[in-house]
Amino acid sequence: MTMSDSDDSVTLAQLAERETLRRIFPRLPESSVTLIGPGDDAAVLAAPDGRYVVTTDMMIHGPDFRWAWSQPRDLGWKAAVTNLADVAAMGARPTALVVAIAAPKATPVAHLESFADGMRDACHELAPGCGVVGGDLSVSDTFTIAVTAFGDLEGRPAVLRSGARPGDVVAVSGPLGAAAAGLRMLFEQAVDASGEPDAHLAASIRSAHPAVVEAQLRPRPPLADGIAAAIAGATAMLDLSDGLALDARRVAEASGVAIDLEASALGDDRVLALGGGEDHSLFATFPAGTALPAGFRRIGRVVEGVGLLVDGEPYTAESGWDPYRGWDGHVG
Amino acid sequence: MTMSDSDDSVTLAQLAERETLRRIFPRLPESSVTLIGPGDDAAVLAAPDGRYVVTTDMMIHGPDFRWAWSQPRDLGWKAAVTNLADVAAMGARPTALVVAIAAPKATPVAHLESFADGMRDACHELAPGCGVVGGDLSVSDTFTIAVTAFGDLEGRPAVLRSGARPGDVVAVSGPLGAAAAGLRMLFEQAVDASGEPDAHLAASIRSAHPAVVEAQLRPRPPLADGIAAAIAGATAMLDLSDGLALDARRVAEASGVAIDLEASALGDDRVLALGGGEDHSLFATFPAGTALPAGFRRIGRVVEGVGLLVDGEPYTAESGWDPYRGWDGHVG
Repeated sequence: MTMSDSDDSVTLAQLAERETLRRIFPRLPESSVTLIGPGDDAAVLAAPDGRYVVTTDMMIHGPDFRWAWSQPRDLGWKAAVTNLADVAAMGARPTALVVAIAAPKATPVAHLESFADGMRDACHELAPGCGVVGGDLSVSDTFTIAVTAFGDLEGRPAVLRSGARPGDVVAVSGPLGAAAAGLRMLFEQAVDASGEPDAHLAASIRSAHPAVVEAQLRPRPPLADGIAAAIAGATAMLDLSDGLALDARRVAEASGVAIDLEASALGDDRVLALGGGEDHSLFATFPAGTALPAGFRRIGRVVEGVGLLVDGEPYTAESGWDPYRGWDGHVG
Repeated sequence: MTMSDSDDSVTLAQLAERETLRRIFPRLPESSVTLIGPGDDAAVLAAPDGRYVVTTDMMIHGPDFRWAWSQPRDLGWKAAVTNLADVAAMGARPTALVVAIAAPKATPVAHLESFADGMRDACHELAPGCGVVGGDLSVSDTFTIAVTAFGDLEGRPAVLRSGARPGDVVAVSGPLGAAAAGLRMLFEQAVDASGEPDAHLAASIRSAHPAVVEAQLRPRPPLADGIAAAIAGATAMLDLSDGLALDARRVAEASGVAIDLEASALGDDRVLALGGGEDHSLFATFPAGTALPAGFRRIGRVVEGVGLLVDGEPYTAESGWDPYRGWDGHVG
């Protein structure tokens, strides 16, 4: 074939699945645990300590992303990161991904190539050694991505949500509210007069405020800090996918404790820090006196009781700013 | 709550994700390899021999199933089986599944409960000890299921597609063309005058010919025979998902051999046996002289050469009857 990789005109409908996969697979990262890779009925992976960590997550065009805002390479990055973060939050090293994509027939194959590039970028930067070991490619009216991620606990116990104990220090590694600030900027400034997402406006907003917008489109949580937290003796951990307030309540409930956050540690926009989701930063609790691993900063403590407190007062707000509530049908 | 499980009127939009999952999870089968189950960021599974088998597959409303023909319980069954078969075809014991579902907001929660029941039925009947260890639930205009399945090789080498050698016997366990015969019956007799799938016609056809129709909607491949084949020394194996002709060619190509099938072993409708997909029967090659494991019957032999032969003559037909080719937009 003489067409270049950047030829945007070749669609899935024009290229057989086998040829499409032939173009995509070389771009994907290789996994350090592969014993038998893609191409057979299934892959075979090594589990050196006799256990493996598994998580799965979908991204759907409309509720989870919009092509007017996300480039295919952003989407591959984010689809990898959201799953890698769940592995890291167990205290495990992310080792492998399988990726199922259902795309409209008119999707340019170049978009899938860029998607693969984004997955590779994310693995290389945030989880070196993690690679794609299998996948599935289907046709659908709705662009849909399902990723399953695997990890290696390297002999350590998994760090669950249920282990926080009164007296523990509450700490976080990574931003609070940055992804939500980026999404707010897109919703406020990258929509047309009728409120529909607009690709040209998104490009210019992104060009003017790359860090703000990319915190939403290409979140960069410090995933290696999950292993450091486990080694340092974290008693509980999760990744902040639905916002600090909601996720901290999950740890509190699973552990049978209350979590008391310090308002002064939450930055200038506390509502955003508490309510904004999709940062995938790592939230962890450590026994009092633990030297926090590099990357983690103290934001509160675990106390006896129920639910979430801020500076000792119950915090009961449902969540912060939630653009998805009621957002329906705008899928541009 | 006083509403019964069979209350068809409660939709996903009315029930929070957490409550939906609370209703679905108790219906799902438990896995024998679960160390940490659903509810944390990820599950942790045992890999007793230090390896695990992984495969993933999507089912999309439209190309892969139609509600007019499939009951939710059928769909759960089939989503499990198509993935379990890939694990079995490696010679592994299926141990666990993760399931991501994206469904329209108006989907009755009862449909997801029935879907879970179908997955449980399939695991109990075809892969005892295999269970669901995690999942994800999303909203989408297109009903989409992504399953990732895991297996345990129990210390044996994986059986690949590439190990067939000239002189080997070719054998199969399970039906050839039965799923395609069921689909043909649905396409011929369960569509209305305009060619759209019709639920009432489908129900009456199924009632009149349950075995024919259910071979398509609830395929029942003898998955335990995959382990028996591995123990008996199978040199290559795969599950027949795209039809005997296409899948046999895959083994021939991966192994660098030709496969010569015996027409007399293919039943009365050879075109259907060669071209019909979705049986998920197990196709395997064994060294000459091997006592075939129970369930397997000889259908040919491996010879030097390239591609597929039938009674020594090259068989080059693209495939048998293919209802999906050109099928587009009829998703009832």
